Amino acid sequence: MIIVPEAAIADLMTREQAFDAVEKVFASMSRRSAYNFPVIREAIGHADALYGFKSGFDRDSLALGLKSGGYWPGNADKGLTNHQSTVFLFDADTGKCRAVVGGNLLTALRTAAASAVSIRHLAPKGAKVLGMIGAGHQSAFQMRAAAEQRGFEKVIGWNYHPEMLARLADTAAELGLPFEEASLERIGAEADVIISITSSTAPILMDAHVTGGTHIACMGTDTKGKQEVDAALVARATVFADEVAQSISIGECQHAIAQGLIAEGDIEELGAVINGDAKGRSSDDEVTLFDGTGVGLQDLAVASAVVDVALAKGVAVEVDF
Amino acid sequence: MIIVPEAAIADLMTREQAFDAVEKVFASMSRRSAYNFPVIREAIGHADALYGFKSGFDRDSLALGLKSGGYWPGNADKGLTNHQSTVFLFDADTGKCRAVVGGNLLTALRTAAASAVSIRHLAPKGAKVLGMIGAGHQSAFQMRAAAEQRGFEKVIGWNYHPEMLARLADTAAELGLPFEEASLERIGAEADVIISITSSTAPILMDAHVTGGTHIACMGTDTKGKQEVDAALVARATVFADEVAQSISIGECQHAIAQGLIAEGDIEELGAVINGDAKGRSSDDEVTLFDGTGVGLQDLAVASAVVDVALAKGVAVEVDF
Repeated sequence: MIIVPEAAIADLMTREQAFDAVEKVFASMSRRSAYNFPVIREAIGHADALYGFKSGFDRDSLALGLKSGGYWPGNADKGLTNHQSTVFLFDADTGKCRAVVGGNLLTALRTAAASAVSIRHLAPKGAKVLGMIGAGHQSAFQMRAAAEQRGFEKVIGWNYHPEMLARLADTAAELGLPFEEASLERIGAEADVIISITSSTAPILMDAHVTGGTHIACMGTDTKGKQEVDAALVARATVFADEVAQSISIGECQHAIAQGLIAEGDIEELGAVINGDAKGRSSDDEVTLFDGTGVGLQDLAVASAVVDVALAKGVAVEVDF
Repeated sequence: MIIVPEAAIADLMTREQAFDAVEKVFASMSRRSAYNFPVIREAIGHADALYGFKSGFDRDSLALGLKSGGYWPGNADKGLTNHQSTVFLFDADTGKCRAVVGGNLLTALRTAAASAVSIRHLAPKGAKVLGMIGAGHQSAFQMRAAAEQRGFEKVIGWNYHPEMLARLADTAAELGLPFEEASLERIGAEADVIISITSSTAPILMDAHVTGGTHIACMGTDTKGKQEVDAALVARATVFADEVAQSISIGECQHAIAQGLIAEGDIEELGAVINGDAKGRSSDDEVTLFDGTGVGLQDLAVASAVVDVALAKGVAVEVDF
């Protein structure tokens, strides 16, 4: 059994590898070669924790297994990350556990890769301004991955706690881009691409805010009750999702669906666009919206890539099992 | 992270420890201190495999995690066990993966422990004859665990393939008990305790076969469509289960429920008997039936016990993670 500890991931995984792994598995999902199993998510009644699994199987790559872990809000006080996860890969030919891989950094990388894939396939080609909503831990990963997809000249950002905007400013500086704090109105009017990555339970970006042909990647909503954008904006946009079943149940589209503003059939898979089976953006004036709910197959794809790199570099730790 | 490889389990786990762990977790389940999460079970469309998870959390012991694996019918040709599983334990205070434990032998031990717990609490005190239906891999584990619960003087057994009965004869000899091949009629008439452990999809033991105050432990049915005993026998018996929700959906009771012969409320939890909250056997003439479907908490309980023993003996393998 191969062990890849959390601390080893940073040296083994690049953004490019995460991008390629996620783009490929979205394509496999849309071809029905890969599918996610039902998500388990439980409030365990201890330490205020949410614990569960995301899992699946990709017949093309033979990636099989799950990511397990969750949210432990008291971890920060102990010097640990609140979100803790581990990926377990199984040998699809025998059912034996093949690898145990730290999942914390991988989760940030695969989530950023998903919005980057949506930007590559859906954002206006000439996008110049990147709008960021949210300045938490994952926002830096999102910005770095997005910046590689278009020739952005500026980042503008908003956060509920403005004192946290330093993270966005620092990340933009690292990328050589100017950064400005902005109102939601300004982000909606100026940004060609907007990434929202918050844990909000009420809409932040409203329909009236968005005036141009923007691409919006909604990356924060992964649970019933969470919401980042106005349901009317979802209804106006051309909507794409990593997985339609998750999008309508735990993703950003849950609200527009519940209100009857859109139907399940209005949501296109991003994988279908990647495969050339569906149209992406059709005009510069169109609002496109990607509902990135986060699927188990993304976790398996990036963890498999990490194991491949570890084996190729000869740094994989093998234990008798 | 602690690693306990499959090969190490045999030296770390005794039947007594498995019995205690399973009895305790059944009691916790009935007190609602422990609960199982929904079961995931998928035909993955590769290698004819069934893959999935059983998982849960015990607030008393803080055992949290899952068993993952499944059934790979082609494994035997490769010199591997067809049933492959691994248990992953998580730290309930932090969400970090605490241990990875080989699950193959543990599965046999915890399943045998469950029927032994049912025999301790439900079988006639003076039981002398043990009837075995099924002679596969798990039957030997079942017989050894059962033999410790009553003063059995004889084992009689039946198997669909009689040529496999040598396993039962050998195991009985190891226990110092005489063994006789028997018809289902004779088993139903003579045995005070009957254990059925098959993968049958049609009833084997019929209502008319059972003439005495027998305790029947149905240990084989863990999937929709499997069946070991006549639904009319289930209806006549006083029925106990490890978990009622699994019993009526994937356990032996699924058929009697579907035919309207019993209601969910007719099934008592074995844990309630252990806790003294429910009556067990009320007379020597009563037929008691335990529907052992196999729950994730059993796997977590025995894996936690193994980790405790490995730590106490100083043989736990720790890897940086």
